[in-house]
Amino acid sequence: MLMERLNSNKSFGGLQQQFEHDSKVLNCLMRFSVYLPPQATNEHKVPVLYWLSGLTCSDENFVQKAGAQRMAAELGMAIVMPDTSPRGDDVVDDEAYDLGKGAGFYLNATQEPWAKHYQMYDYVAYELPALIEANFPVNNKRAISGHSMGGHGALTIGLRNAPRFTSISAFSPIVSPLNCPWGHKALTHYLGDDQALWVKYDAVELMKKIKGDTSNLPPIKVDQGLADNFLEEQLKPHLLLNAANQVNYPIELNTHSGYDHSYFFIASFIDEHLQFHARHLFK
Amino acid sequence: MLMERLNSNKSFGGLQQQFEHDSKVLNCLMRFSVYLPPQATNEHKVPVLYWLSGLTCSDENFVQKAGAQRMAAELGMAIVMPDTSPRGDDVVDDEAYDLGKGAGFYLNATQEPWAKHYQMYDYVAYELPALIEANFPVNNKRAISGHSMGGHGALTIGLRNAPRFTSISAFSPIVSPLNCPWGHKALTHYLGDDQALWVKYDAVELMKKIKGDTSNLPPIKVDQGLADNFLEEQLKPHLLLNAANQVNYPIELNTHSGYDHSYFFIASFIDEHLQFHARHLFK
Repeated sequence: MLMERLNSNKSFGGLQQQFEHDSKVLNCLMRFSVYLPPQATNEHKVPVLYWLSGLTCSDENFVQKAGAQRMAAELGMAIVMPDTSPRGDDVVDDEAYDLGKGAGFYLNATQEPWAKHYQMYDYVAYELPALIEANFPVNNKRAISGHSMGGHGALTIGLRNAPRFTSISAFSPIVSPLNCPWGHKALTHYLGDDQALWVKYDAVELMKKIKGDTSNLPPIKVDQGLADNFLEEQLKPHLLLNAANQVNYPIELNTHSGYDHSYFFIASFIDEHLQFHARHLFK
Repeated sequence: MLMERLNSNKSFGGLQQQFEHDSKVLNCLMRFSVYLPPQATNEHKVPVLYWLSGLTCSDENFVQKAGAQRMAAELGMAIVMPDTSPRGDDVVDDEAYDLGKGAGFYLNATQEPWAKHYQMYDYVAYELPALIEANFPVNNKRAISGHSMGGHGALTIGLRNAPRFTSISAFSPIVSPLNCPWGHKALTHYLGDDQALWVKYDAVELMKKIKGDTSNLPPIKVDQGLADNFLEEQLKPHLLLNAANQVNYPIELNTHSGYDHSYFFIASFIDEHLQFHARHLFK
């Protein structure tokens, strides 16, 4: 598979890099960023945390603003940061910030004009990990995390693919597209009006369907700022907590007074997320 | 003095804020950012590290990319980040990235058309600290640091104002404008052709003039990446080290293989700089 390196910077003894490749799933050129800790060599392959960013972001926001490289270097964990939608002049867009480019919602679109390129679910769950594992000194231990729309992506991709990802975490996630305006708008456009087709992209609905022994399912950690302007209308993390408690799913929801929806919140608690994933990735 | 708060985000238990104020020295509205650690209260005032950014930066680059808030919160140190030049439609500019807006070089311009606004030396050394100490829960213990052009600013302002700043540090600094193309261009425009008038803005020349007991002068810490594209032509930190050794000035120069001129280098070593300053600020 064609892959070109665009940038490489030494960071905390490891390498922060950016690549471009030709995605078959998305039918376009895609960029992603990867942090390789100093421990990663062909003789010593390291596990990978996939980080999914939120609305309007590219692969670069988390790289520059989260400060995650320090702890990733300490733990010996790679981080892979995909873009948030297909890109390029051939890809259909919308002028709104919450639809089209920068707003792929990590799902496989079925509706026109979106279906040709907007297949972010398959890209993040399968195509990108295969590319990473074929080309970088990483093993097949994977965890997944994200912010806001990316938290939605991490929860839905993680829940639907156990045990493909050993652990799942999210900052300020959209936990139920069925129950918020961002979700209704995006899923109507990408999936159509039949809400029965939305449930596989709704973490709360996925959680409700879980049955039996949950002790070996990937544990979930969610952090939420209480000064987040989107908390009441869009995020509603208690819906996920309630559904998880009903099925005895391993979950922790931590709330933090005074913190908002910004990367300043993510940076303040990213170390704890990396440590959470390390406990499962290195088990 | 008029001062308006533009942003405030909780960060590592403290507050990352941005303000705008009317600078008398610069004759324009100026923005600055400040990080207040959780320890800072009117009953417990904290010391301040002034951070000076490099060419093309504003007050926001360090805020977003350095990851300094974590250690500042741990140490109980405020960080103040000024802009790199006067700003606004009334301020003369140049189309080059290394002259005019974003390239104030932390000096007091004497030449037209620059002199009316480009007085960054007085702004950083005096006006801004007075504003900060009158309006925030900080004491009058100050340290100064910076990157590239901002490293030049930290070294020259720190050396000329001992003991106003207790310690000085720099990443990848321009140590001698007299001996590099960036310096020649900027100082010719801002100060004129007479190089005798440049020496007070040249850290190496300032160092050469130091006489007598240096043990109570502010110690200097410099870090330099060896994969920095600007190292040989523009930065030349050995000139400062040699001059400091001649006068027995307390200095450490640390070089780091593989690191470049980017914020990834700064982020990798900013904790050590904050710890260095804390040893002197809290003495």
